[in-house]
Amino acid sequence: MTAFASDAALSLPAGALEQLRTALGSGGLLTEASDMAPFVTDWRNLFHGRACAVARPATAEACAEALRICAEHKIAVVPQGGNTSMVGGATPDESGRALVLATSRMNRVRAIDPIDQTMTIEAGVTLKAAQDAAKEAGLLLPLSISSEGSAEIGGVLATNAGGNNTVRYGNARELVLGLEVALPDGRKLDLMRRLRKDNTGYALRQIFIGSEGTLGLITAAILQLQPAPRSIEAALCAVESPAAALRLFAAFRSREPSAIQAFEFMSGVSMGLVNTLIPDAKLPLSEPAAAYVLVELASPREGGALRELMEEALGDALENGLVTDAVLAESEAQRGALWKLREEHAEAQKRAGASVKNDVSVPLSAIPEFIERASAACEALIPGVRVAPFGHIGDGNIHFNLVQPEGADGAAFLARDHDIMDAVAGIVRELGGSFSAEHGVGQLKTYMMPDWRGGAELDVMRRIKAAIDPQGLMNPGKVLPAL
Amino acid sequence: MTAFASDAALSLPAGALEQLRTALGSGGLLTEASDMAPFVTDWRNLFHGRACAVARPATAEACAEALRICAEHKIAVVPQGGNTSMVGGATPDESGRALVLATSRMNRVRAIDPIDQTMTIEAGVTLKAAQDAAKEAGLLLPLSISSEGSAEIGGVLATNAGGNNTVRYGNARELVLGLEVALPDGRKLDLMRRLRKDNTGYALRQIFIGSEGTLGLITAAILQLQPAPRSIEAALCAVESPAAALRLFAAFRSREPSAIQAFEFMSGVSMGLVNTLIPDAKLPLSEPAAAYVLVELASPREGGALRELMEEALGDALENGLVTDAVLAESEAQRGALWKLREEHAEAQKRAGASVKNDVSVPLSAIPEFIERASAACEALIPGVRVAPFGHIGDGNIHFNLVQPEGADGAAFLARDHDIMDAVAGIVRELGGSFSAEHGVGQLKTYMMPDWRGGAELDVMRRIKAAIDPQGLMNPGKVLPAL
Repeated sequence: MTAFASDAALSLPAGALEQLRTALGSGGLLTEASDMAPFVTDWRNLFHGRACAVARPATAEACAEALRICAEHKIAVVPQGGNTSMVGGATPDESGRALVLATSRMNRVRAIDPIDQTMTIEAGVTLKAAQDAAKEAGLLLPLSISSEGSAEIGGVLATNAGGNNTVRYGNARELVLGLEVALPDGRKLDLMRRLRKDNTGYALRQIFIGSEGTLGLITAAILQLQPAPRSIEAALCAVESPAAALRLFAAFRSREPSAIQAFEFMSGVSMGLVNTLIPDAKLPLSEPAAAYVLVELASPREGGALRELMEEALGDALENGLVTDAVLAESEAQRGALWKLREEHAEAQKRAGASVKNDVSVPLSAIPEFIERASAACEALIPGVRVAPFGHIGDGNIHFNLVQPEGADGAAFLARDHDIMDAVAGIVRELGGSFSAEHGVGQLKTYMMPDWRGGAELDVMRRIKAAIDPQGLMNPGKVLPAL
Repeated sequence: MTAFASDAALSLPAGALEQLRTALGSGGLLTEASDMAPFVTDWRNLFHGRACAVARPATAEACAEALRICAEHKIAVVPQGGNTSMVGGATPDESGRALVLATSRMNRVRAIDPIDQTMTIEAGVTLKAAQDAAKEAGLLLPLSISSEGSAEIGGVLATNAGGNNTVRYGNARELVLGLEVALPDGRKLDLMRRLRKDNTGYALRQIFIGSEGTLGLITAAILQLQPAPRSIEAALCAVESPAAALRLFAAFRSREPSAIQAFEFMSGVSMGLVNTLIPDAKLPLSEPAAAYVLVELASPREGGALRELMEEALGDALENGLVTDAVLAESEAQRGALWKLREEHAEAQKRAGASVKNDVSVPLSAIPEFIERASAACEALIPGVRVAPFGHIGDGNIHFNLVQPEGADGAAFLARDHDIMDAVAGIVRELGGSFSAEHGVGQLKTYMMPDWRGGAELDVMRRIKAAIDPQGLMNPGKVLPAL
């Protein structure tokens, strides 16, 4: 240990510092508080932790060796990708005893195979860079989330990210053929097989996907890509209710489910905020509606088949009243303009004042009842509250957001956030839903696990945790509540 | 214990017999050797075991209670569905100390939801009955295997079954939204959620799917169904080589991957056996070819779009020489006739004499090299051997079967089975493949696990096994080799 080691580094157990420096090389270990600052706070600014060091290995081998050293010295490890967690999943606690292991330097696309249509990729590649690499090879990585410019593949898989295209391609889990994991004891678990069929023992990769770094650290993966689409059609539809939106989804699905690349719901209230508060986001329909759907169809096939499908489906829906008005994008620019109307909801809600977010899912069939009951419950709690849900209705995943009453005090509204979340959660639970559809548990929602996933379920999770991470060093305090 | 209890029942620990009788009710427990006979031998007639009793619970609750009683008395439990394992996965050992737990009486379709397009179903429903129930509701359960008339849902999920339609819909794993499991200690693990997005802790259902009954007993599941197809097109194509078959797959995939419901490869040798030895299975092409592909496209959409896609793709392939001849089914009867040419390969090979089977997979891109090298290796080992591969080329899954030389001694050929399997396996391994693509490990292939899945991988599997089944009572001797 050098004479000028920072306070943080001083909390590294004796011997560990030099071992880590040797393993990680120059620039691979940060110990100055100022250097570590970006790594100890989440981007939502909800959690502020401390770390004894930040390790930045450039290879899977160095990463595994860092974990081995940490295991030897009983140092907790907090894996961190692009640091875009919505639930504090990548932020250390305040003890300063944990080491943050940042994956950004493991950032090679190792291979793309055009016949297998697979991509072999390291944990630190951003999702956007991975999408671009696939595109360059004439292929599609069918996963899209709003943080894709910063979010890294390791974190995307560790949290089983969802997004706009899961209605067609599934969550991140469904794209993974192979996985490479550094285990808590520093061993490498090599599951890097490019096979679509392989029934030789337990599906270990599945237990690491979505485990939020609490069982090991994903260092690389093999992803299944898709042919790039050659035709895309998008339409914005006005509908009278969530029930109509759901019936419209069923109508598209019964025609050609695999053509539906996105099917997004937006409440009239939330669209009103976008229309009012976001410049250049103007509703291209003659009058406002109770709700909207953005439907996007895609196919690798050229020609007019997709357009025909869209026109047939919309024509029928307009005729039978399921859709009251619709506009079809006639150019890439128009398609972009329709998507802007979907993508600006979070920003518009922010500009409208304080808001409370619920990332929930229910069975598809329960969506209309959920929105109706949750809206009524929130309006009863906070008269004048703006109920502004939107989301991936084709997956049963609604971002059920509440915006403060116009002109009211934001802080007073936020003081009721737990009342609101509890009311929404209670209805979600009665309908057999999930309290975290996409964002995971992290540290923000850990407290909900015993109640929602208690009994045998939580017990089996704890047994798996103890079996794979017996010292309890990987991302402590995340997913599983302390005993 | 009654005075007339059979020898088998006598090996039940004191007290367990009465407890099990009470829990399972009349007809729920078999203890006579003659009654148990069908349950202690596998259908391939490879394994002959004994059991202390056969439990046949009618409900998930009775099933869990039986497991609790077995745990109390340290009785091993061998779960059994339709008893169609290819690898002895459901057959007890010869000790007679294990209890077979047969799921056939848990056979209710609990619910089908047309909006969610889900089916809630108990373990003992046969796959065929489940397909029929889906069809009656206007939906498709997109899983088809040759044993579907006997195979039961519990076993289908416990072995992550594959089959003809995985190229489009994935393996059994990809169809499962919810799972209900009786744990080895008799607790019920309720993961019966009908959600397409749910990131609340470890994906426990994934660890039970494909674990072959070694971690618990699947009692029910919620499956994701699909809209029923309204148009289907099938064609049989003659191609010059496996490489041409693979290029043809890539050509179809680049047009519309989601339209490909099946893409089956058949070697000329194997098709020759079908053509010669199976009455009513006649090749509808003017002359025999080196290899064949059966491609089937399907869509819920009515109209001519699918036919157009098939004709475009085949037209191009004939023009550029990828396909040398092709026939398109013009009726359901003709489609049936084409499928008969695919389905009779196992039977034709059986009629041609002794054969050695290899259910292997490799990355798609490695298929041509695999078939070429494995063929040469087997021909060098056994001059005159008939190399007769066929299978799901779109998944990289080839049933690489070898038929004895014409007129040779079958027993002498079978005496070389391990030489043949080892030669094939060696090449599969060099190409990054799997020694069991579809059939699982069971007891037949357990010995291969340390070599193929050894080190950290097998160690983590063993840790999970010990964590969930600490007494080691669930399906002992399957998947994981004895220490």
